[in-house]
Amino acid sequence: MSERSGVSVASVKYYLREGLLPPGVTVSARKAEYDEDHLRRLRLIRALLTVGGMSVAQARDVLAAAHDPAFDRHTRLGVAQYLLPPHVTAPPEETAEGAAWRERRTEVLALLRDDLGWQIHDEAPALDALTEALITLNSLGYETTTASLRDYAHALRPIAENELRLIDEHPAIDEAIEAVVAYTVLYEPVLLSLRRLAHEDVSARLHPPSST
Amino acid sequence: MSERSGVSVASVKYYLREGLLPPGVTVSARKAEYDEDHLRRLRLIRALLTVGGMSVAQARDVLAAAHDPAFDRHTRLGVAQYLLPPHVTAPPEETAEGAAWRERRTEVLALLRDDLGWQIHDEAPALDALTEALITLNSLGYETTTASLRDYAHALRPIAENELRLIDEHPAIDEAIEAVVAYTVLYEPVLLSLRRLAHEDVSARLHPPSST
Repeated sequence: MSERSGVSVASVKYYLREGLLPPGVTVSARKAEYDEDHLRRLRLIRALLTVGGMSVAQARDVLAAAHDPAFDRHTRLGVAQYLLPPHVTAPPEETAEGAAWRERRTEVLALLRDDLGWQIHDEAPALDALTEALITLNSLGYETTTASLRDYAHALRPIAENELRLIDEHPAIDEAIEAVVAYTVLYEPVLLSLRRLAHEDVSARLHPPSST
Repeated sequence: MSERSGVSVASVKYYLREGLLPPGVTVSARKAEYDEDHLRRLRLIRALLTVGGMSVAQARDVLAAAHDPAFDRHTRLGVAQYLLPPHVTAPPEETAEGAAWRERRTEVLALLRDDLGWQIHDEAPALDALTEALITLNSLGYETTTASLRDYAHALRPIAENELRLIDEHPAIDEAIEAVVAYTVLYEPVLLSLRRLAHEDVSARLHPPSST
């Protein structure tokens, strides 16, 4: 299996020991057989740990949810996304800072849910990251209005639709989760660098070089 | 100055010594006077080093360009953006990997310039970051088509236009550069978390919970 996947024997043994990879079918005392499902699972484990930056415990939770018959596809993919970094910690509830933080989070969730009609879970980690970013901007004197947040959300929605469509081209759950990790994480630099390149273009148009 | 800016005396002295902050007007052997320009500059230095994550040498280059009369506003803002992390290093030119890397970069630049008409400098660091991300995706089996890249670019362009308009509300160059750093860096988590929340909404609609 190590040979076919390019993953070291030590890593494969480690994943077996940690329960990430189910044992193969034992054919003799020193040999077990592994099939295509094992290889696919191994690929997913690598994606969770390396591309996704998850801990072994987090990867184990993703895999458990992926194969729990109580969960539907939306929940299985959602567990994978929720366990991807970053995880922002709110300031303690009893402080003034913590109270303001929670208030801001509630406002943002209301904007997304009531104003845009987005179906978002109360505990979405991305909502914490968003709140934290808006509070930092505010503290430096850069206000973000509801209107501007709505503009960002509208610009990003079609991107998300395309990505989900591509993820859904993988009916097998292990492959779909791998795609969630790959799309979520690896397209982030694509978005951010295209935005910087767009800045450059817009700036060149707004400030053409004075002809000298 | 330390009192009014909230920056420690040790930091102010360090910035003076490193030539980031110009000396105040000496009024006695142990006292110098600082004006509003100094405070504004101090705010910018903090933004470059903390929010922007630049080294002192990089911040010095940004400040030198900002006050070099040979440069126009587009170039001054551009230097600030170019010195913001991340800076991706291409694989060595003489390797097969390096050749493929450069080929991909040329293709992406052609798409942006010829196809979309964007005015992008050959050496834009964001082009390196974009190339690297596309190559990583490719190596994991996730192809990015020209059409999909164009979709991302089109989705991000209006965002960039709004942001540049807000940056241009600051005519003073020190303030404008601070805004470039703040918008570029601090809106990144806003974009990324809104995209993840949009994923969640789209997924919920594509996979409604089966009524049991």
